[in-house]
Amino acid sequence: MAPGASAADPQVIFTPSGRRGRVSAGTTVLDAARSLGVDIDAVCGSRGICGRCTVTPAFGTFAKHGITSAPDHLAEPGQLEMAYRDEHGLPDDRRLSCTATLLGDAVIDVPPESQVHRQVVRKDLAARAFEMDPVVRLHTVDVTEPDLATPTGDLGRLFGALRREWDLRDLRADLSVIRILQSTLAAGGYRVTVAVHGGRDVIAIWPGFHDRAFGVAIDVGSTTIAGHLVNLVTGDILASAGVMNPQIRFGEDLMSRVSYVMMHEGGDVELTTAVRKALDGLLAALANKTDIKRLEILELAIVGNPIMHHLLLGIDPTPLGSAPFALATDTAVSTTAAEIGVFAHPGARVYVLPCIAGHVGADTAGVILAEEPHKSDVMTLVVDVGTNAEIVLGDRHRLLAASSPTGPAFEGAQISSGQRAAPGAIERVRIDRGTLEPRFRVIGVDAWSDASGFAEAVSAAGTGVTGICGSGIIEVVAELYLAGVITADGVIDGAVAARTTRVVADGRTFSYDLHEPSDGGPRIVVTQNDVRAIQLAKAALYAGVRLLMDQLGRDTVDEVRLAGAFGSQIDPLHAMVLGLVPDCDLDRVRAAGNAAGTGALIALLSGAARREIEGVVRRVEKIETAVEPRFQEHFVEAMAIPHRTAPNPNLERVVTLPPRPATADRVGDRPGDWRRRRRPVVRSAPAADR
Amino acid sequence: MAPGASAADPQVIFTPSGRRGRVSAGTTVLDAARSLGVDIDAVCGSRGICGRCTVTPAFGTFAKHGITSAPDHLAEPGQLEMAYRDEHGLPDDRRLSCTATLLGDAVIDVPPESQVHRQVVRKDLAARAFEMDPVVRLHTVDVTEPDLATPTGDLGRLFGALRREWDLRDLRADLSVIRILQSTLAAGGYRVTVAVHGGRDVIAIWPGFHDRAFGVAIDVGSTTIAGHLVNLVTGDILASAGVMNPQIRFGEDLMSRVSYVMMHEGGDVELTTAVRKALDGLLAALANKTDIKRLEILELAIVGNPIMHHLLLGIDPTPLGSAPFALATDTAVSTTAAEIGVFAHPGARVYVLPCIAGHVGADTAGVILAEEPHKSDVMTLVVDVGTNAEIVLGDRHRLLAASSPTGPAFEGAQISSGQRAAPGAIERVRIDRGTLEPRFRVIGVDAWSDASGFAEAVSAAGTGVTGICGSGIIEVVAELYLAGVITADGVIDGAVAARTTRVVADGRTFSYDLHEPSDGGPRIVVTQNDVRAIQLAKAALYAGVRLLMDQLGRDTVDEVRLAGAFGSQIDPLHAMVLGLVPDCDLDRVRAAGNAAGTGALIALLSGAARREIEGVVRRVEKIETAVEPRFQEHFVEAMAIPHRTAPNPNLERVVTLPPRPATADRVGDRPGDWRRRRRPVVRSAPAADR
Repeated sequence: MAPGASAADPQVIFTPSGRRGRVSAGTTVLDAARSLGVDIDAVCGSRGICGRCTVTPAFGTFAKHGITSAPDHLAEPGQLEMAYRDEHGLPDDRRLSCTATLLGDAVIDVPPESQVHRQVVRKDLAARAFEMDPVVRLHTVDVTEPDLATPTGDLGRLFGALRREWDLRDLRADLSVIRILQSTLAAGGYRVTVAVHGGRDVIAIWPGFHDRAFGVAIDVGSTTIAGHLVNLVTGDILASAGVMNPQIRFGEDLMSRVSYVMMHEGGDVELTTAVRKALDGLLAALANKTDIKRLEILELAIVGNPIMHHLLLGIDPTPLGSAPFALATDTAVSTTAAEIGVFAHPGARVYVLPCIAGHVGADTAGVILAEEPHKSDVMTLVVDVGTNAEIVLGDRHRLLAASSPTGPAFEGAQISSGQRAAPGAIERVRIDRGTLEPRFRVIGVDAWSDASGFAEAVSAAGTGVTGICGSGIIEVVAELYLAGVITADGVIDGAVAARTTRVVADGRTFSYDLHEPSDGGPRIVVTQNDVRAIQLAKAALYAGVRLLMDQLGRDTVDEVRLAGAFGSQIDPLHAMVLGLVPDCDLDRVRAAGNAAGTGALIALLSGAARREIEGVVRRVEKIETAVEPRFQEHFVEAMAIPHRTAPNPNLERVVTLPPRPATADRVGDRPGDWRRRRRPVVRSAPAADR
Repeated sequence: MAPGASAADPQVIFTPSGRRGRVSAGTTVLDAARSLGVDIDAVCGSRGICGRCTVTPAFGTFAKHGITSAPDHLAEPGQLEMAYRDEHGLPDDRRLSCTATLLGDAVIDVPPESQVHRQVVRKDLAARAFEMDPVVRLHTVDVTEPDLATPTGDLGRLFGALRREWDLRDLRADLSVIRILQSTLAAGGYRVTVAVHGGRDVIAIWPGFHDRAFGVAIDVGSTTIAGHLVNLVTGDILASAGVMNPQIRFGEDLMSRVSYVMMHEGGDVELTTAVRKALDGLLAALANKTDIKRLEILELAIVGNPIMHHLLLGIDPTPLGSAPFALATDTAVSTTAAEIGVFAHPGARVYVLPCIAGHVGADTAGVILAEEPHKSDVMTLVVDVGTNAEIVLGDRHRLLAASSPTGPAFEGAQISSGQRAAPGAIERVRIDRGTLEPRFRVIGVDAWSDASGFAEAVSAAGTGVTGICGSGIIEVVAELYLAGVITADGVIDGAVAARTTRVVADGRTFSYDLHEPSDGGPRIVVTQNDVRAIQLAKAALYAGVRLLMDQLGRDTVDEVRLAGAFGSQIDPLHAMVLGLVPDCDLDRVRAAGNAAGTGALIALLSGAARREIEGVVRRVEKIETAVEPRFQEHFVEAMAIPHRTAPNPNLERVVTLPPRPATADRVGDRPGDWRRRRRPVVRSAPAADR
């Protein structure tokens, strides 16, 4: 029972929470909810303006609860609510809980959109549903006007109003707020709306009622910087955009950028400036896609790998380039947009998720937050595949993380016909087991290449067939293996040339002609070197995974999530044929989308999620692949395609695997051969590092 | 007894604290002190480097304490201490407490300079002694080196070291510190010194041992901005300097500056920029006087009147120009040097003392902190006299504050021969009661004007006799009254012209010739208008004081402190003759120097003082003179010189007062006359406001 209520007072039941109690007749539904601990949102503070607190009364006799709820148990809409209905519209069955008063027993449903801690479900982001726990909240208050009798400061009276109306205490205000406080109070007739960050810091103020507050979740990748512009009040994603990371001109991969910093005086400042400018451009692009001004952006949440993390924050990443790969900080960093040179609201805050270890960054923290392996009952493997693969393995008991230097092959780089995933790139490939003829699909065109009208469709799309992207490379190599063109040790078998003109001699090795453009463009081929590059990359990935499995004493995993721009496009079957990931029920391998970016989004909208990930990263066991002797062993063993010593029912249900090699050591080259082929790298990792 | 010690262990007594206890043999004196709660300073953390923890063992039998302290009860100096002695010297009787180990019973004296919370006594500043409670402290630590087995961040390991060695917890670090953390650790071989602000924020870091940290206490006056450069480790004042407030070009007094802001678009930004630049120049001037770099300045503590306070912080002061004179904030403001555009260490913090009311600023808070009327057993009046007089009255039970618009007459402005206090200005005046001849002293010359060699001394000093400064004006008017040249109602009596050629007709009134320079410069005179201006100013001051006395139901005060550049120069006798302050035992009227600046200094060096003043200003009762009807009455009544209705033994012991006027209403002009003579002012105060 709410404080001060008696047994004769109206009884109210809120759904879905099921909370119930009695409140004095005449209490507003919102006050009743608050007194019973029911979570209803509000910005305007019972002023009938914001419309965030709408509820749906349910009428009838609820035998289970012993309560009869009738329409006249709620007072008719008053002037405030009628004004709101006139101006904004409101379905007939909805009421503004801040103005509707209880006259008798009632059952009140609080729809999800009226809850502060509502679930956010984003199918488009392949993210789990999560609960909002807003870090930035808007509160409208009426501030007592100054008078000569009590010559207090305006700030003190603002804080007083926030305590009185919203129970906020121990507040601080940015100097930028204090500066405009008096003119804002005057403009709003002493009614203002403030943005309070973390329940503590007043970071923005507007005259009158104001319900616009936006945030941006950002994934700073080595190649692309992607962001979502989010309404911090509703949790809605309003726009998404990506910009290229201009640091690419200093080096394609991270280690070459670190080399650049080491070799050029002021190089760190150059790289920091470049990435900050890009971030600034991203915010501009997001604002341009909407009617939102950058001054309305109050919060950024950022993930990135350790090197991007350091460069963005202006920290020299050099120590990350050599053992012991020490991070400057492995705690979450809270700063301001101004401090990192990004133009947003003057009070805008920045939350950078914690890095985990020298090679396992805030992006991995984001992946964990999005995929929640630490809450899983089953052994879950999450890999975020890029130039480096971030690997997380574990369940609710233990969680391990590592980074493995897969190199850029998975992204189409250093592959003879490779290209980034863009319209015109081959992304799906099938090879006929008998004729060895290929068919494929390119990004931007729906039809397969063997369908009638494919040429016209490509022509209509204006894309051409320009190369093979990462997922296409995985598929073509796996298909070539399944078709017997490539042996288990990764050699394009010259003997097959007798069966098809597509396998052609190429110096001392053979290559496979995938496509000859009719427009006379360069042929798209798979060379022996391409296969080797994929072998190197997938062996590095697998060796990292295997290392974590060793640590846990496991030979199998129960679930696999493939995250990242590339990871999400990989066909699980082909990935498993090739041995990118350990064997697992194919149904339990799924794409996780840009999980790192989703993690940033969750952190943007939830303080609880921030506390959660800060706790989780502390207990993650960090494995440094670069210095684990077993990594090297696993790496060498994992070169074979597929590296399987036992029958694999998961795959064999779906595809016919070629006969296994007679012995486990039939790997085509000796380990030393691979090592010699690596160019010198900054990082002292013993494995392929490009 | 210290934890873990037994009755057989050495007993140690620390003086002057008197703390005693037993500690295991071999414990260092510093550790013994800490375990017994004895306050010993240290920067380097028992590394024998900083030399801040020296103590003086006392030897002999201390019957009172039942203890015999012998030289061999302390181990001989070891290698660390010998190295320190070689490099820095140390008196024979001193030991480094961090290296000296206890072998038997000992009495150890901790000299003041080795205490963290030592007393600071500054006779030169006329300040009370106060206890340091450093807000910024330096701590040297050895940080664990990173290793691959535990891939934690460097920041986490730094915090770990600070917890381990200094028991500092819940630390945060500025991004500027995180940025240089790794290179600093490398440069110092993982030994670094950090500056910790408020026990919480790591704001600076240096490689190795570092014991330089400086702060500046600043009084932002309408006319002058004065600062003291202070060693934050020792509390020593290293330099003092003052610069003119360049805002003077926007208006001599505060209200004309507010008018400027009201009348000029962007005027507030102009004034803010001007004062910040001046502050920046002040820091440069202070640094130039010493070998200190501005980058070594870690903390500023600032006082100023409400309008200077607002302008410095970039807050539009317009609301302070009209009722209800609302402050933007009346709490202390903590910000950074960067945010107020002052160049210092990147992590430098700024503490601005709280304002009290619309006309009673942080300068008054500084005065309270310096003079401590709130701790007094007797009724204490503190007045800080400038263009506005800040008035504080009370004792440890109640404290009242007000501001009274005295105008610039006390500072020599709007006085025909007036000038600022500078070499050549007449500051002391005596007038012979019989001959009515004056004698005087000028700033920069020791001799009185009637002494032989005065002309030569003036000539040697190169000052000339250029005008009369504030204290000189008070004295000459008071002396003219005592000599019977001026009547009680402030009229220069033409009848006296018969006795002296110094009183000459000047239109319808008379004036008094104080000095005719031999070099043909302008005569220095006191006109009827000058006397009127002083009457207005002193009446405003007295009326404000009287208002507070009314509020407390008092007719007398026990102590008077005259603060401020002008206040400190006033001769108490003449001030009382003229009625600037209420009657009081002359011995209990004393100058307080620049108490506001001293308050800033105390706040700079003491966190306890900050908490104290923040608490005191909340309970100060604020009186707004501008709207108190009785202020007007008191003001009119206080025009007479002297306004006394009863014999005054305090004065009459020292001087012979002229006969009192027959009736109390013999004031020369009607109240309305005074009002008409005031020019229009922004502030709606009914009293003289210039």
